Amino acid sequence: MRADARKNRDHLLAVAGTAITEHGVDVSLRDIARRADVGLATLLRHFPTREALLDALLRTSFDELTAKAGELETSSSPEDALVSWLRDCVACAHQYRGVTALMTAAIEDTDSALHASCVSMRAAGARLLTRAHAAGIARNDIDGTDLFALVAALAWLSDQPSLASRADHLFDVVASAIVTSAGSSDTEGEDHPRTRS
Amino acid sequence: MRADARKNRDHLLAVAGTAITEHGVDVSLRDIARRADVGLATLLRHFPTREALLDALLRTSFDELTAKAGELETSSSPEDALVSWLRDCVACAHQYRGVTALMTAAIEDTDSALHASCVSMRAAGARLLTRAHAAGIARNDIDGTDLFALVAALAWLSDQPSLASRADHLFDVVASAIVTSAGSSDTEGEDHPRTRS
Repeated sequence: MRADARKNRDHLLAVAGTAITEHGVDVSLRDIARRADVGLATLLRHFPTREALLDALLRTSFDELTAKAGELETSSSPEDALVSWLRDCVACAHQYRGVTALMTAAIEDTDSALHASCVSMRAAGARLLTRAHAAGIARNDIDGTDLFALVAALAWLSDQPSLASRADHLFDVVASAIVTSAGSSDTEGEDHPRTRS
Repeated sequence: MRADARKNRDHLLAVAGTAITEHGVDVSLRDIARRADVGLATLLRHFPTREALLDALLRTSFDELTAKAGELETSSSPEDALVSWLRDCVACAHQYRGVTALMTAAIEDTDSALHASCVSMRAAGARLLTRAHAAGIARNDIDGTDLFALVAALAWLSDQPSLASRADHLFDVVASAIVTSAGSSDTEGEDHPRTRS
């Protein structure tokens, strides 16, 4: 892609990100084009469908989350890495209002443009979870799909105006169920050797 | 209300319940009237709006849940009562597809026709929770609104086709975070006197 085309595309993505943060995933492509001060045809040349636009937006966010998971694997304890990454995932899904339902649909729909991004994010979480399992600090009966589902449910809660004020607290509650040694005074985790990197 | 009017109303409610279970809360009133073999005007005489119809349906379910909470208070241990009641709440919210979002909106909206039913259900849960707190077997930093939010999030998960297969398992995970002595080998609950009825 030529430099000016890349620049135009990045500008459209930034404008679309703001519009979707403010108005949710159902904002019209025409509105996004107007905000970006381009014609609808120009927007459609870059992103032929709403799904293509959402995919580009989410792919960027999910790629960042995947990269973050890789960093955390080497820089943080298994417990801190998993909890901190889950918190970032919830914040990411909450950022674009309405995207959580699209994510949950895409994770099992190989025809969805968002499928590959969602699968890659789930795999990054599963790696952090495997490390936490090896350290004996996470429930053994939870896998990457369970994590993905819990992130989606917590992001959905954050999206509900009447319950959003509880979202951070309930994140801690759910995290304490995943990471058996976090946010709890029980000593179960002490039965296992703790490996901290 | 005369006996035949009550019978017609109950018939309409039963038909509406089936229609909403199958097609979600957005099913048209015209469709419900057709299924019930009455004119739209007759349906509207009983239920002038979709919200009035949903309120009547949910009020019945929520009243049953409130009654169930009362029974469980005397028949079951604080732990079993709370967990069993929460499971019933999730099943109830999941039964009518799309109702979870309406419930979460209504809990803080005093203008909603569903508000009173939702508040009453939350209060029933809060009573079971108070009993569990007194028995020292539930997290002290959770209140009735947190319970309501977790039920809503779990019902939302059950509604997502791609994640529904995990819903029962994740209910157990979340319940283990609320009820500190359930589904876990920790011994925290043993620090408190256990009151079993």
